[in-house]
Amino acid sequence: MLTLYDYVPSGNCYKVRLLLTQLGIPFRRKETDIIAGATRTAGFLGKFPNGRVPAVELEDGRLLFESNAILWYFADGTRLLPRDNFDRAQVLQWMFFEQYSHEPNIACRRFLLMYPQLADERRALMDRMLRAGEQALSVPERHLASNEFLAAGRYTIADIALYAYTHAAQQGGFQLSNFPAVEAWLDRVRLQPGHIAIDDAGRDWT
Amino acid sequence: MLTLYDYVPSGNCYKVRLLLTQLGIPFRRKETDIIAGATRTAGFLGKFPNGRVPAVELEDGRLLFESNAILWYFADGTRLLPRDNFDRAQVLQWMFFEQYSHEPNIACRRFLLMYPQLADERRALMDRMLRAGEQALSVPERHLASNEFLAAGRYTIADIALYAYTHAAQQGGFQLSNFPAVEAWLDRVRLQPGHIAIDDAGRDWT
Repeated sequence: MLTLYDYVPSGNCYKVRLLLTQLGIPFRRKETDIIAGATRTAGFLGKFPNGRVPAVELEDGRLLFESNAILWYFADGTRLLPRDNFDRAQVLQWMFFEQYSHEPNIACRRFLLMYPQLADERRALMDRMLRAGEQALSVPERHLASNEFLAAGRYTIADIALYAYTHAAQQGGFQLSNFPAVEAWLDRVRLQPGHIAIDDAGRDWT
Repeated sequence: MLTLYDYVPSGNCYKVRLLLTQLGIPFRRKETDIIAGATRTAGFLGKFPNGRVPAVELEDGRLLFESNAILWYFADGTRLLPRDNFDRAQVLQWMFFEQYSHEPNIACRRFLLMYPQLADERRALMDRMLRAGEQALSVPERHLASNEFLAAGRYTIADIALYAYTHAAQQGGFQLSNFPAVEAWLDRVRLQPGHIAIDDAGRDWT
């Protein structure tokens, strides 16, 4: 069975739990507390040199990190990743947008507000992160005003990737009511079969 | 012919010029000066709402943004993107690593040093960016100590994605001599057929 190195409050980890649950793929969870330093141990870094979760170890021992690469690996060949070349590029477009323009503002601002005890130089950029996060939310807002989902006209891993931190953006100080098309899309994502909430660690397969 | 919205000093744009040149795909360049605000005009934002280059308009009018999604679109089906599912996930792993952990430190620090006239709150994080960028360089350093290329045992778009800003890291104040496996890999990338330098706008196909 595959092992998921997981930390429940992390939206990046939630993406993978949500996908595996929706696809019915069995997995073993290994809780990895990033606040307690569990991603900085020699054992973890020996397997995953970037020192981040989520990360997966397949049953045959092969290792993979980066949440969106993990989504791609498990979704390829399923209904959640289209086959057409341009559709796939659009899925990736939104997934790279999520990691570059969205997560560093929306997720990091949420993280800094959730853990006020942590010293972090990024606190000096809280105002900038608010403006850049609002700008990042405005990009899917425009697209979703005339599209039900982000890519290929249907629910894909691009929606899973962007849902994870968008649905929790209020915890980062963002007002989702300013983004009505995004709010309506969040509801459509929640209605997908097999959806689980971020605080749901998923079925225990072991 | 496809149109590439391009800005020569940008490593993200360079990735796309390098790939298209290596694959022999004709393209028309539209120089888009980000410093002069060319990505903030209503015309540009109407096409590419994230307001960034590179971006492409295909001959049939379809639009795509995000450098690494563009690489994927053009490389799929060629020698520069493997077919095996796990190999492809590893290509994406390094490409997401590049956009999340590498570019925001190495490229942004280079950008802030290249344009001292620009007001930017991120200057307060220059020390943090140096440490985080060195940490980001140490991840491929470990991998490349025992692998010729990043994924699938051969030159792929993962190498193109990570090469773009790594080879220019000195301009961000990083000492590449501390990363000998990365330096040797940079040389291997430079030796690939059809390689062009970052200040080479590529062949004029028009």
